Amino acid sequence: MIEKYSVRTDLALEQKERFESDNVEVQGVVLEEDYDEEREIRITTVKIETENGAKTMGKPVGTYITMEAPNMTVPDESYHEEISEELLKHMKQFVKLEKEDYSVLVVGLGNRKVTPDALGPYVVDNLNITRHIVKEYGKYAMGEDQAHLISAIVPGVMGQTGMESVEIIRGIVNETKPNLIIAIDALAARSSRRLNSTIQIADTGINPGSGVGNHRNAITEETVGVPVIAIGVPTVVDAATIVNDTMENLIEALENSETLRGVGVVMQGYNAAEKYELIKELISPHLNGLFVTPKDIDETVKRISYTISESLNMLFSGGHAHNH
Amino acid sequence: MIEKYSVRTDLALEQKERFESDNVEVQGVVLEEDYDEEREIRITTVKIETENGAKTMGKPVGTYITMEAPNMTVPDESYHEEISEELLKHMKQFVKLEKEDYSVLVVGLGNRKVTPDALGPYVVDNLNITRHIVKEYGKYAMGEDQAHLISAIVPGVMGQTGMESVEIIRGIVNETKPNLIIAIDALAARSSRRLNSTIQIADTGINPGSGVGNHRNAITEETVGVPVIAIGVPTVVDAATIVNDTMENLIEALENSETLRGVGVVMQGYNAAEKYELIKELISPHLNGLFVTPKDIDETVKRISYTISESLNMLFSGGHAHNH
Amino acid sequence: MIEKYSVRTDLALEQKERFESDNVEVQGVVLEEDYDEEREIRITTVKIETENGAKTMGKPVGTYITMEAPNMTVPDESYHEEISEELLKHMKQFVKLEKEDYSVLVVGLGNRKVTPDALGPYVVDNLNITRHIVKEYGKYAMGEDQAHLISAIVPGVMGQTGMESVEIIRGIVNETKPNLIIAIDALAARSSRRLNSTIQIADTGINPGSGVGNHRNAITEETVGVPVIAIGVPTVVDAATIVNDTMENLIEALENSETLRGVGVVMQGYNAAEKYELIKELISPHLNGLFVTPKDIDETVKRISYTISESLNMLFSGGHAHNH
Amino acid sequence: MIEKYSVRTDLALEQKERFESDNVEVQGVVLEEDYDEEREIRITTVKIETENGAKTMGKPVGTYITMEAPNMTVPDESYHEEISEELLKHMKQFVKLEKEDYSVLVVGLGNRKVTPDALGPYVVDNLNITRHIVKEYGKYAMGEDQAHLISAIVPGVMGQTGMESVEIIRGIVNETKPNLIIAIDALAARSSRRLNSTIQIADTGINPGSGVGNHRNAITEETVGVPVIAIGVPTVVDAATIVNDTMENLIEALENSETLRGVGVVMQGYNAAEKYELIKELISPHLNGLFVTPKDIDETVKRISYTISESLNMLFSGGHAHNH
Repeated sequence: MIEKYSVRTDLALEQKERFESDNVEVQGVVLEEDYDEEREIRITTVKIETENGAKTMGKPVGTYITMEAPNMTVPDESYHEEISEELLKHMKQFVKLEKEDYSVLVVGLGNRKVTPDALGPYVVDNLNITRHIVKEYGKYAMGEDQAHLISAIVPGVMGQTGMESVEIIRGIVNETKPNLIIAIDALAARSSRRLNSTIQIADTGINPGSGVGNHRNAITEETVGVPVIAIGVPTVVDAATIVNDTMENLIEALENSETLRGVGVVMQGYNAAEKYELIKELISPHLNGLFVTPKDIDETVKRISYTISESLNMLFSGGHAHNH
Repeated sequence: MIEKYSVRTDLALEQKERFESDNVEVQGVVLEEDYDEEREIRITTVKIETENGAKTMGKPVGTYITMEAPNMTVPDESYHEEISEELLKHMKQFVKLEKEDYSVLVVGLGNRKVTPDALGPYVVDNLNITRHIVKEYGKYAMGEDQAHLISAIVPGVMGQTGMESVEIIRGIVNETKPNLIIAIDALAARSSRRLNSTIQIADTGINPGSGVGNHRNAITEETVGVPVIAIGVPTVVDAATIVNDTMENLIEALENSETLRGVGVVMQGYNAAEKYELIKELISPHLNGLFVTPKDIDETVKRISYTISESLNMLFSGGHAHNH
Repeated sequence: MIEKYSVRTDLALEQKERFESDNVEVQGVVLEEDYDEEREIRITTVKIETENGAKTMGKPVGTYITMEAPNMTVPDESYHEEISEELLKHMKQFVKLEKEDYSVLVVGLGNRKVTPDALGPYVVDNLNITRHIVKEYGKYAMGEDQAHLISAIVPGVMGQTGMESVEIIRGIVNETKPNLIIAIDALAARSSRRLNSTIQIADTGINPGSGVGNHRNAITEETVGVPVIAIGVPTVVDAATIVNDTMENLIEALENSETLRGVGVVMQGYNAAEKYELIKELISPHLNGLFVTPKDIDETVKRISYTISESLNMLFSGGHAHNH
Repeated sequence: MIEKYSVRTDLALEQKERFESDNVEVQGVVLEEDYDEEREIRITTVKIETENGAKTMGKPVGTYITMEAPNMTVPDESYHEEISEELLKHMKQFVKLEKEDYSVLVVGLGNRKVTPDALGPYVVDNLNITRHIVKEYGKYAMGEDQAHLISAIVPGVMGQTGMESVEIIRGIVNETKPNLIIAIDALAARSSRRLNSTIQIADTGINPGSGVGNHRNAITEETVGVPVIAIGVPTVVDAATIVNDTMENLIEALENSETLRGVGVVMQGYNAAEKYELIKELISPHLNGLFVTPKDIDETVKRISYTISESLNMLFSGGHAHNH
């Protein structure tokens, strides 16, 4: 069905799953899975290797690593430390800080005043920023052999600044010449079970339509001039998506169920487009702009942002970071 | 269908509507409607007059006034002033402050740290509190002929305090002897179009199951010893409710539509209980604890709480209040 | 000098010091000191043993333990853990939780919206609250042999509630019958070097004039009916106090210095009252209501409140608490 | 006395006053005063006209307008509207928006997380941002004849970003080419009576040593390439300044007073440098990094920032702005 692929997800994993559920094989896309039973963390790597694969997937060529850890929504400090370390392991695949004086600009995308969109700003709040110290006192001021230059910006959203995030970032990159950007963003998922329990890392930067705010321009090596690693967590699901999904399930059930076999027979007479029209009519127009979110989203986003910033602090310092 | 009446709403108006949609007449319940076209405000008064009516409605005997103003979600200051004045007019039906030294305790129910549940605390933040001034300096300190004693408390939620709100309020009432309680609370609605655009005032107090937090005990004249006026605004809709509604629409459409007449015929063979089972199976278990809410809920709740507190400030002072 | 003893401090230790600096021995007051060099923590215990001592000190009979740890202002997580454990050790002297079902009400005094006064509310935010769980599911729900019933309230300040904190607390005590109250409050100190680096624990409750807000009534066993342990941290110093102190130093220097010996001779001709009048005239009236505070008070108060709440969580659970 | 001119103030007015109190005439600096008795607003214009004047004053050539309105600290909404309008009148002297498509970048300097330094970020929070709307939909989308392009940025402070504010701003200016920058900053004053009741507007930009944070580089036409108008409000006074002032008063009083004439005679034997040494010795080292501030600084800064943003909104729209 046409609409099936138009419903929005920022997770490459979910995009891939949708093709699988239709038994469509996507050329140029490779999937690897790994499951850590003890800690209940599932790692999925989606590699989009060809332009054809990119076109089908609606996402650029690159590597997308997804960590799914259902317990991430639980306020267990030691479990969050494990997540931080697992995340560190995967970030190291993308971020090589071997060179001395390597300089990273961390960008906290999103709106600090809208809780599910505040992930990026919150991550930046907890980072150990070092660029100004290394520049003024030299690398030995940090008490480390290798002192990387870490800077960070929370550009705000277009309604607050009147500017595209990419304009602000490109300007700052031109002035401060970082080697790499790491951009943090809240994402939209298709599946409510991935809410606040999934982290995606990608070497493709931020692309149009990504993020909880949907008006963003691309922030990629092409648009800002340095490589961009993107870290995202789905914090919302469109309300319409959830209704849509359940209704597709209903129609499928009508077609397959023993009990309702008769209905199934009739439904088979209608084509995808007709069924899509039917669903579209029935979904309330009042759902536009509404999102599905847990009630304790404020605390959840704070906790996850802390987990990510701890991981970044470890990455940048080469060791373990403790910073409340 | 049985479940139809079990899905949760805190609005008496929505409860009444559900019976109407089934063409069931409810004995002992009277409905009055009024529509102000110019300002697009609909006022509905539901009076539950008998114990029978109360039983059917699942809500206690009393009067429930609902103001629906779709533009309440828009940040238009002068429109919010009109809402404040309209709300004032209706509160005056319930709250008679004729006596001098009349004393009112305003209770801001809910969780200040969870945005959609923070309505009550935010309203209390903007109130003009006078009890301590009148007690220390006399009523002339207020520069008013009639100086009412206004006090307020934000009791917090059980997870924060370890106590029922009713325990805290009863304790304070015993100590400070107010004549009346006005309790403000965030509500759950059934319909997403009522989100953040509806205010309900009731002379029945707060009853079990009301509010965005669902663990509350009754706060009523019976439990705290003084009359309790409740003011509420629906700030969330259960995610499951929205899915459920749309699916009921689908089944209804299957039964009635020209295009899908064949399916309709088959569906008629199944009874309500069978259809309910079908829906229940299809709704994702991951929707439990999820709510539908607009992304800008933070600002919306602040704006509406200000509108309500301005109205209360006018009510208590007898005039117009300005207080940023 | 008369005013010397009228300048405000909430620390028994500072009151005692002032007498010492004048070589006045205070009858009925015992002082013990202990210094942990490695961790740079100084513990001072002031015991006011007689009513005479209480009258001279201007503080009720009881035990006041002061922990001074200059590094408390530094954001070092492991040092804060040490402070938590040291604090735990001293709290255990006052709080005996041997009995099963022992019930403690923690009171977070102060104003959540005024940073230096927000210590109490912030401590309560991080507590593990258990009363409602134990009451509903029994003590085994906590996975502990001894499950104490911990409840907490943030009563707010009089300008917000129109009520004295003691009215609210007495009401709640009458309803919920705790065995003990632990009240947390931000204090005023005389000395700027004690700002945010000192914790006082006292078994005397909260007394008039204590706290950053100065309008409070006593919260003591006499006024609320159960023992009250008070925990406080000085977060502000009156601006006038600092000026006053430095000027006393100046006058003393004038009297004693080699260089200014001539002035000293003249000054000796003036008595304490005359010198006090001189100082009072010179202190700017614009200092009234002004406080001396570090610029990063927001983060400092958050960090210290977390240190205290961790200590309380350990106290209540009998073990180590982890709760972000 | 040497130190007299080294004590820090960001107000040109205060710098000028200090010379006056010593009866020193400053060449190349012109002062104009105006007092509105009814509204109790004093307007002082300091014009530094020559490089010599600039050198003596320690501030660049330019015009500095100061509005002093003692009632600004009072939460009176209609008075704040009057301040907004008075401020508008003076800003119009500096900001000429005659050209269509005039584009202004508002910069909110300071640290959002440190209350007395949060003035700039708070002002930006309440601005009507239009650049993105005009760029996408054209000027008629604004319903105005003249639609200016207003953008804004909160760059954060160096400890948060690792970058100088001027680096971030220069980068953004290069990308977005505004015609003018308006930079908002919290200032340090010398006099506690000017705290939160004074607004300075200057056409000289932000200069080293300005602001509550003292590590800033210049943000001026020379460093960013477009004219910079600076708006500032003193929100803190150094604690050491207040002590220093009072002690200077004391020494002056000793020299002049009838009562202490004898001391005066002796003090005259000592020179400025000796007196300065004396004072320096007596001021507590613990005052370093401490500031004098009112306890309700949180609410005060919010109110004043709203007053300024309303004034800017009126300036940009050509009319009256209402925006909660």
